[in-house]
Amino acid sequence: MTETPPAPQIERAFDLLIRGVDLLDVTGSGASLQRGVDIAIAGGKIAAIAPSIEPERAREVIEGEGRLAHAGFVNCHSHAAMGLFRGVAEDVTVQEWFNDHIWPMETGMDDEDVYWGALLGIAEMIACGVTTFAEHYFKMEHIARAVTDTGIRAELAPTIFSGEGEAEELAASLAFAEAWQGAAGGRIGVMLGPHSPYTCSPDFLRSVAGAARGTGLAVHLHVSETAEQVALCREQSGRTPVGLLQELGLLDGPVLAAHLAHPQDDDLQLLARAGTAVGCCPKTEMKLGAGVTPVGAMRAAGITVGLGSDGAASNNTLDILEAARLTALLEKHERRDPTALPVAEALALATSEGARAVGLEGKVGRLAEGYQADIVLRRFSRPSDRPLHDAAATLLWSAAPADIETVLVAGRPLYRDGAHLTLDLPEVLGQAQARAERLSRQATNRRMAYYPA
Amino acid sequence: MTETPPAPQIERAFDLLIRGVDLLDVTGSGASLQRGVDIAIAGGKIAAIAPSIEPERAREVIEGEGRLAHAGFVNCHSHAAMGLFRGVAEDVTVQEWFNDHIWPMETGMDDEDVYWGALLGIAEMIACGVTTFAEHYFKMEHIARAVTDTGIRAELAPTIFSGEGEAEELAASLAFAEAWQGAAGGRIGVMLGPHSPYTCSPDFLRSVAGAARGTGLAVHLHVSETAEQVALCREQSGRTPVGLLQELGLLDGPVLAAHLAHPQDDDLQLLARAGTAVGCCPKTEMKLGAGVTPVGAMRAAGITVGLGSDGAASNNTLDILEAARLTALLEKHERRDPTALPVAEALALATSEGARAVGLEGKVGRLAEGYQADIVLRRFSRPSDRPLHDAAATLLWSAAPADIETVLVAGRPLYRDGAHLTLDLPEVLGQAQARAERLSRQATNRRMAYYPA
Repeated sequence: MTETPPAPQIERAFDLLIRGVDLLDVTGSGASLQRGVDIAIAGGKIAAIAPSIEPERAREVIEGEGRLAHAGFVNCHSHAAMGLFRGVAEDVTVQEWFNDHIWPMETGMDDEDVYWGALLGIAEMIACGVTTFAEHYFKMEHIARAVTDTGIRAELAPTIFSGEGEAEELAASLAFAEAWQGAAGGRIGVMLGPHSPYTCSPDFLRSVAGAARGTGLAVHLHVSETAEQVALCREQSGRTPVGLLQELGLLDGPVLAAHLAHPQDDDLQLLARAGTAVGCCPKTEMKLGAGVTPVGAMRAAGITVGLGSDGAASNNTLDILEAARLTALLEKHERRDPTALPVAEALALATSEGARAVGLEGKVGRLAEGYQADIVLRRFSRPSDRPLHDAAATLLWSAAPADIETVLVAGRPLYRDGAHLTLDLPEVLGQAQARAERLSRQATNRRMAYYPA
Repeated sequence: MTETPPAPQIERAFDLLIRGVDLLDVTGSGASLQRGVDIAIAGGKIAAIAPSIEPERAREVIEGEGRLAHAGFVNCHSHAAMGLFRGVAEDVTVQEWFNDHIWPMETGMDDEDVYWGALLGIAEMIACGVTTFAEHYFKMEHIARAVTDTGIRAELAPTIFSGEGEAEELAASLAFAEAWQGAAGGRIGVMLGPHSPYTCSPDFLRSVAGAARGTGLAVHLHVSETAEQVALCREQSGRTPVGLLQELGLLDGPVLAAHLAHPQDDDLQLLARAGTAVGCCPKTEMKLGAGVTPVGAMRAAGITVGLGSDGAASNNTLDILEAARLTALLEKHERRDPTALPVAEALALATSEGARAVGLEGKVGRLAEGYQADIVLRRFSRPSDRPLHDAAATLLWSAAPADIETVLVAGRPLYRDGAHLTLDLPEVLGQAQARAERLSRQATNRRMAYYPA
């Protein structure tokens, strides 16, 4: 009698294997497409990309054949919970938008409004392939809760306006960082979030700069959104907002400057030297007629630029691919040059360059070994996606959220076959509708701040 | 014993009833939303809109509760079959695009390529709510066949370049009009389609003007797409393209001028006086860096403007709602005025104004009694559509083809629950892929014409 030899022990080294997928990896220097490869995921990261990996080595297998895999998009500037105000204030000036519509409603938001608003925004972002967002908002612990619950990745900057309680608010931000930096399995990062040079005093911005130096935290704020803001700053300080921030020491550490539509004088040189990154939000910037971040000029000056959605109250969507498309269209249009911002560069803004802008370079924004497994699988089966001559061009110019089949963050599926796995969408939509109606009914005379005319 | 009284005879006066729908009707002067109304359809037209119509009076009922109904979009300038070349020529100049990529491939297209390419384009248009398109292409009888087969509505202008066979081609266009005008149950109209002042000789354009006068046919052509075209025309004729067309008598009858991105001198006044309509194709125009139709200035001058997709070879999509969104963004941006081209006006460009531009005013482009029942039913259930504060704003700024549940043309459902009813989508996509690959392999040295450097 012979003994049956023991079955060979195959080590299940991988948590997940995506088989036979077309992999699009995009960097600032170009796009590469690998056809029909396997992606193995372990410990939340991409462990291996190879022509063929034994499926037995993975605990779970996702069929990738006929799908395109690309890195999840990075939203470099958002106010996710503002989705509750989507569509309430259209075709109005920036002043009216803030003073008469948004700020009066925002003052009525309670903790749960922010939580459910953030869930709405996160649901939308996941459904359109955004896997990381850099958020600027108040009641941030409730957004952190929504990030934790849903499995998305975020860099959270609690918004602070100048005013009586500013010192306490800064202390609260530092305590928030203490509590949440690296939380949710490393998916949450924290930044400091002074609102802007036009709503924060120079003294306060100086103290934020000191706190940032002391803690190593990056700073995320709004800068030079409109020509009027720049003029006001010049009048008050004799400097551009960028010049003022530099003088206050705020550009000494890592900074994510949202919008920056109106660089003047030597602003671009200052930003490039300081290594300040910029989050362009083209849809909001065009829609509010406020001027658009000069992306091409910034990139030529060596500035890192990523793309943001701003809040859905002005942007109406949180779709970073839409932002990439708009940015490419506007660059080509304004330069009268169809070769400007080619496909790969526009996609890089939404992925690898965006990752660099939010301080996650080398960690997210690419599909390469060692990167976090933040992956979108897309199936090009709608007529507008076909025929498929060039997957990168189809992604930039034709793709839609409806193509997305699967979204992973840190290797965990958050979305499969058009359905959210980590949130109850009908419940989120119902809560959002009810809360939005209540907030618009009870809009108060109070404001978060007053936007200068 | 008493006789049972005969059951009351209810006349089935309506072919179809849409029940309890929110109806958005848009004209140049505003948008009106009627909540929870019934729409009765008979003989392909909207027979009645009322708060409550007995369902027994209709042969078929579609549940409209919780849906938005709006008029199908009008695509004022398309080359539907060019979808076969989607994505083949990105980030190149207009000259390279025509001379090195598109025209060499187009010369290889046979009848069936045009038919299947048109089916691909029609499949896309139906799926994004376009119910009428104004087409400019060659081998038009095969596009007419695709229109007939699929149930969509179209105004077809067979493209003619100047050259040896131009007289025969004009005669063929007139024969095409003879055969197809009013065909497919009135869904097909015909226009004359000289390509443009830069590819057609003045003599030929004069003979087209004569033919148009003689037959009452409208003329659809490309005008002043680039600054270079205008400069070349001035050099050759001493006039702008618009001035030249007027001198040749071509603006005496109804004309649909595509693009017209570079009106000069008194072009706008000439166009307004002549009643010439313009088809703006913002995505192509931005993407090719060729300059964009000045929609606001044209509307201020009293010119009718509609929106077009151009071909997907340059535009990548045939989505007229995307065109409306881009037009509104660009108007607001370029005027630095967030109140420019408000929601209702932008939607009107895609519907009622577009209908006027293609000569179908009073027939399509609105949801009102007596209009053709070209209706889109949309369900706002994606997170980016919610909460719903303002249905018109949601439609313009957030909606996507994925919201569309039902598309009717002349009262006939062409699309239900995300599926095409009048074409076999997998077959169309497969044919498109195979034909596109063959055409890009066999690109010849021949060209349809030569685009001047």
